[in-house]
Amino acid sequence: MVAPHSPVEIWELDDPVLEPGSVLLETVASEVCGTDVHLFHGQLSGVPYPIIPGHVSVGKILEAPGVEADALGNPLEPGDVVTFYDVHETCWSCYHCLVARQPNRCPSRKVYGITYSVEEGLLGGWAEQIYLKPGVKVFKIPKGVTADQVIGGGCGLFTGFAAVDRARPELGDTVLVQGAGPVGLSAAAFAGLGGASAVFMIGAPESRLELGRSFGVDEAFHLDETTPEERKDRILEKTGGRGVDVVIEAAGHSSAVPEGLDLMRDGGKYVIVGHYSDVGSIPVNPHLDINRKHAEVLGQWGTGFHHLTRALTLLARHSEKLPLQNIVGKKYSLDEANEALADVEHLRVTKALITP
Amino acid sequence: MVAPHSPVEIWELDDPVLEPGSVLLETVASEVCGTDVHLFHGQLSGVPYPIIPGHVSVGKILEAPGVEADALGNPLEPGDVVTFYDVHETCWSCYHCLVARQPNRCPSRKVYGITYSVEEGLLGGWAEQIYLKPGVKVFKIPKGVTADQVIGGGCGLFTGFAAVDRARPELGDTVLVQGAGPVGLSAAAFAGLGGASAVFMIGAPESRLELGRSFGVDEAFHLDETTPEERKDRILEKTGGRGVDVVIEAAGHSSAVPEGLDLMRDGGKYVIVGHYSDVGSIPVNPHLDINRKHAEVLGQWGTGFHHLTRALTLLARHSEKLPLQNIVGKKYSLDEANEALADVEHLRVTKALITP
Amino acid sequence: MVAPHSPVEIWELDDPVLEPGSVLLETVASEVCGTDVHLFHGQLSGVPYPIIPGHVSVGKILEAPGVEADALGNPLEPGDVVTFYDVHETCWSCYHCLVARQPNRCPSRKVYGITYSVEEGLLGGWAEQIYLKPGVKVFKIPKGVTADQVIGGGCGLFTGFAAVDRARPELGDTVLVQGAGPVGLSAAAFAGLGGASAVFMIGAPESRLELGRSFGVDEAFHLDETTPEERKDRILEKTGGRGVDVVIEAAGHSSAVPEGLDLMRDGGKYVIVGHYSDVGSIPVNPHLDINRKHAEVLGQWGTGFHHLTRALTLLARHSEKLPLQNIVGKKYSLDEANEALADVEHLRVTKALITP
Amino acid sequence: MVAPHSPVEIWELDDPVLEPGSVLLETVASEVCGTDVHLFHGQLSGVPYPIIPGHVSVGKILEAPGVEADALGNPLEPGDVVTFYDVHETCWSCYHCLVARQPNRCPSRKVYGITYSVEEGLLGGWAEQIYLKPGVKVFKIPKGVTADQVIGGGCGLFTGFAAVDRARPELGDTVLVQGAGPVGLSAAAFAGLGGASAVFMIGAPESRLELGRSFGVDEAFHLDETTPEERKDRILEKTGGRGVDVVIEAAGHSSAVPEGLDLMRDGGKYVIVGHYSDVGSIPVNPHLDINRKHAEVLGQWGTGFHHLTRALTLLARHSEKLPLQNIVGKKYSLDEANEALADVEHLRVTKALITP
Repeated sequence: MVAPHSPVEIWELDDPVLEPGSVLLETVASEVCGTDVHLFHGQLSGVPYPIIPGHVSVGKILEAPGVEADALGNPLEPGDVVTFYDVHETCWSCYHCLVARQPNRCPSRKVYGITYSVEEGLLGGWAEQIYLKPGVKVFKIPKGVTADQVIGGGCGLFTGFAAVDRARPELGDTVLVQGAGPVGLSAAAFAGLGGASAVFMIGAPESRLELGRSFGVDEAFHLDETTPEERKDRILEKTGGRGVDVVIEAAGHSSAVPEGLDLMRDGGKYVIVGHYSDVGSIPVNPHLDINRKHAEVLGQWGTGFHHLTRALTLLARHSEKLPLQNIVGKKYSLDEANEALADVEHLRVTKALITP
Repeated sequence: MVAPHSPVEIWELDDPVLEPGSVLLETVASEVCGTDVHLFHGQLSGVPYPIIPGHVSVGKILEAPGVEADALGNPLEPGDVVTFYDVHETCWSCYHCLVARQPNRCPSRKVYGITYSVEEGLLGGWAEQIYLKPGVKVFKIPKGVTADQVIGGGCGLFTGFAAVDRARPELGDTVLVQGAGPVGLSAAAFAGLGGASAVFMIGAPESRLELGRSFGVDEAFHLDETTPEERKDRILEKTGGRGVDVVIEAAGHSSAVPEGLDLMRDGGKYVIVGHYSDVGSIPVNPHLDINRKHAEVLGQWGTGFHHLTRALTLLARHSEKLPLQNIVGKKYSLDEANEALADVEHLRVTKALITP
Repeated sequence: MVAPHSPVEIWELDDPVLEPGSVLLETVASEVCGTDVHLFHGQLSGVPYPIIPGHVSVGKILEAPGVEADALGNPLEPGDVVTFYDVHETCWSCYHCLVARQPNRCPSRKVYGITYSVEEGLLGGWAEQIYLKPGVKVFKIPKGVTADQVIGGGCGLFTGFAAVDRARPELGDTVLVQGAGPVGLSAAAFAGLGGASAVFMIGAPESRLELGRSFGVDEAFHLDETTPEERKDRILEKTGGRGVDVVIEAAGHSSAVPEGLDLMRDGGKYVIVGHYSDVGSIPVNPHLDINRKHAEVLGQWGTGFHHLTRALTLLARHSEKLPLQNIVGKKYSLDEANEALADVEHLRVTKALITP
Repeated sequence: MVAPHSPVEIWELDDPVLEPGSVLLETVASEVCGTDVHLFHGQLSGVPYPIIPGHVSVGKILEAPGVEADALGNPLEPGDVVTFYDVHETCWSCYHCLVARQPNRCPSRKVYGITYSVEEGLLGGWAEQIYLKPGVKVFKIPKGVTADQVIGGGCGLFTGFAAVDRARPELGDTVLVQGAGPVGLSAAAFAGLGGASAVFMIGAPESRLELGRSFGVDEAFHLDETTPEERKDRILEKTGGRGVDVVIEAAGHSSAVPEGLDLMRDGGKYVIVGHYSDVGSIPVNPHLDINRKHAEVLGQWGTGFHHLTRALTLLARHSEKLPLQNIVGKKYSLDEANEALADVEHLRVTKALITP
């Protein structure tokens, strides 16, 4: 990705010099997601174009000098299929890393596929090889999980997981997910696997709701084919007139927030995870929406490496129940990257996958 | 209080018949607070006028048939000075009481001084005697604490305590309290006693800020004599450029919310406890204010009996450091109740006290 | 049950007089569990023999004067099949109920089938009818769940659920359950439904381990046919050499505790829920077992009504995956009660069920 | 410290070569504590003698190439007085660092004054200068806090703080600390500053109890001059017959554990922080001590950098109330190190301080 609005080009780069502790991967698959569309339109600040996009990727180990095991102690050798935590160089030195213990708010984070110039090396997934600098956290894909499943979930898999983890529903809680994109689908799946007694979803189009149902959603409402009143009536009917215990906003539309707060029971929790970019403000009534409701409204920003390992470990146990590969609409070769970007932008596919 | 907008009248009532488990108190003091002003203006729904106002009160036991100890096991006998939990008849049967374990959202709650008609008996504090029905939770005022201190704090004492308890700051967190009324003063005091490393306050008038400083506020900003920019600069300077860890909104003005969210650090907590009535909506940006900030926004509605006992027990240990009696502007006899209401409404006193 | 060690007799009692708020049930099934064996041997103190045993029961509503809905708001009418929370009259007045918010440690609790003399009425499940006093919490059996499933789980269902709730494992944690009785089987099932990435079990006999596997246990170790070393080797192998994140002791044998602490990883959690009676002391090394391990050892005593409703609500979602009815070894009529007691005592059945 | 049991010697070492990101300190003071006595007797495994002892130290910055601020953002320059987190090189790569988020159990930790051979440089506090390798976390001593206070508290200051943080008492809880050494004194002080309504202490000798009282202990029991029965009677009397909410074991004697569990109320918390070395096992009854008590027993191992910064920040607010410098029995020059060790071993001083 040479510059915003320019077509993606294929460049030939030098072979990387491997430092001790680094890992060189042959790319198996890399994700194309909404963030890449934002990158293409120059909507993120501080991006050192030209860059190699692709932040969540799966690869096969070519060489790993001095690396004997992943962060969980699984032994590693050439040929093993792994993924890695794209956010790295968390500083472990600042207030957020050490005192608040919220490294997801560390101001020094670097992200593969986003914050690295192509001059710094093979630091993005849309390439035949990926160079993992020493310290990048690698995780061996658990047995029973496929590369397509991991990338089918992609960054949404981990973000959706993190949203459920942030809410920490109690066993038996009811959960509503707003949004049926990759984040919403993942949140719904993990809410169900994590002990929800009922999982509702509001979203569109129907094909995504169908995916949601296959991942464990008990009742899915089509955003355009049901009215807010119908949804509210039905949800109140299913929750003893109270509303759901936990709402997870993964829609990215401002209008979702007032509806979500309204469908949450008094004393419930509301996780806002879908607003990764600024789409404007909404009116909130501090008395009615927060104070009197005794509400808990939680932003979830980014993910931690533990979200990645926990999500994949849990996925391994329920691999058959979560055919995340079905989220992938289409696979593209490297020279079809521009087409992939366009398809994602125009919602022709939920998730696209680059397979170099 | 015969009806909204009518002057408070003094009525002569029959002596109550004491059921087993009830307690009859000789009123020592009862609070006049903003809620009473709301009652006077008919701004609360479902109030069965005529009523006896006065929800937080202190009394001396006259008779207590069959009651031998308070809820914490302190032995009780006639002459003991006690307070009681004005919110009672929490049903302990509904979803909120039992399953969510948030009895403060129980829909069946009854409140002394608010939800009882005068026909139901001496169920409010602006009277020479108060009849505590069986099941009303009594708590013996701990040694070293005076009735004036308890009523000086009043319901704000417990509400402010509950706000700090809701935030559960970590030891060494910095805390900002917005508002210098009884709730804000109490929140600031308990934030300091609870292990904050710095307590800031924004409010007015100066006399209340002065009270705040005497209760442990490290730096108080006059709402009208400092600009938002000055406050922000100073708070960032004192918090390593990050903002405070915990903000408690006890102002009751919508405009406090955006400023509070702005002064809270990334990953911080914001407790909204000052919006007990509807003063309108405010614009909130889900991306900037919640999601990207990884914020935790918590409404705190009402209090539990444990807030009352814990606040008073902690107050007993620090009695000298917390001269809450200084919040009381003036004491009034029963036949000065209308004057007391007017003085509270027009902010001529922070807290008024009826001493029958 | 006339007295300890005397055969259970069948008595004819008067029809109860129904107070407003009470519920009269026709008994569908009532549990026979280890506690009933303890009652038979006089091993519990303060039991007012003669009593009607049977603490967890399912019944059909005959009459319910003034009761229109259960605690969750589900409408009730004659013919509905319900269960109820056997522990009631929690005082909601003491330190544990109100200040510590741990009503399971309330000293005033009364338990159906245990603490009521037969003279007080039909207050136990081994009877054709059960009289639920006003205030006893009723819960309508959710659609899709059968009475056999509820009683098959029985009190163990709720106790096992409470143990998982006490541990609050994180999504993706590994869990080991020690013991394969009703409590252990339930804990294993809910650990899996609640998001564990792997569930191990140690117990006996093989038939119970087989039940465990059918409820979601990934790997079950026969207590007598594997050595502690073999179990440790295998568990370390499956957990990257660390041990499991959460261990739940539901064995009731002292020897389980040292093995459980040893199989728990550093920084893990250990829930002791199987020691409902005193079977002696064990040696614990405060340095090696607790301090250096940064361990969290949690006792779980009793259950709350929310455990009952949450367990059954979650069960309803996964009804087919949890054939708890298979725990029931045999059904007995009222006049076979002595036989049922003997079969449970001598482990001839895991769970017996009285169907009057 | 050349080898176990050999007298400490004074060696002349080369000036360190300063890497970018390192800090060179002129030692102001370094602690002599029980761990150093253990080191002297060779009771810790894996120590690469000869070493420079001294793990908690305060120094004045001589040079700090490329270091502009501490971890909290306070600007640093030569002459500033700082302390540092002695435990470093936490790997931020393993299961405990990343997935469990318990870096205090990271197996790769390195500790100044303990795990470094003298050949690796000036990596201990009993020296005229201390070399802080890049990545060692520095914290500027807050205004109002003296070096003597920090070292007076020493590692016990942070360990005691961590124990209170582990318990997270609720505001108004009662707390008992067992042990009156540096850890116990610190725990008692921070329990009080953190919102306990009463702080009890059991320990010896009287001089330390006197220090405890000056730090906020409400009632201190001399271990030898009161009987366990007397202590129990008194504590039950002061806690409504229930026992304390939170007990912190900082005694290091096995016998403290049974007494502590007994003095803890049902549903209370017990933190074991005093057993840093193995002094044998004790009998624990899983039924009576854990299960039926609904107990929470928590080991606290090591500390995090946040404990250091939070403890010192809170100390700064209450500097006058916590004259920790009074714990220091005596100051020693470098050539009196052997005498210091002997005085600490034989309890002639609570804390000794090396001032080169």
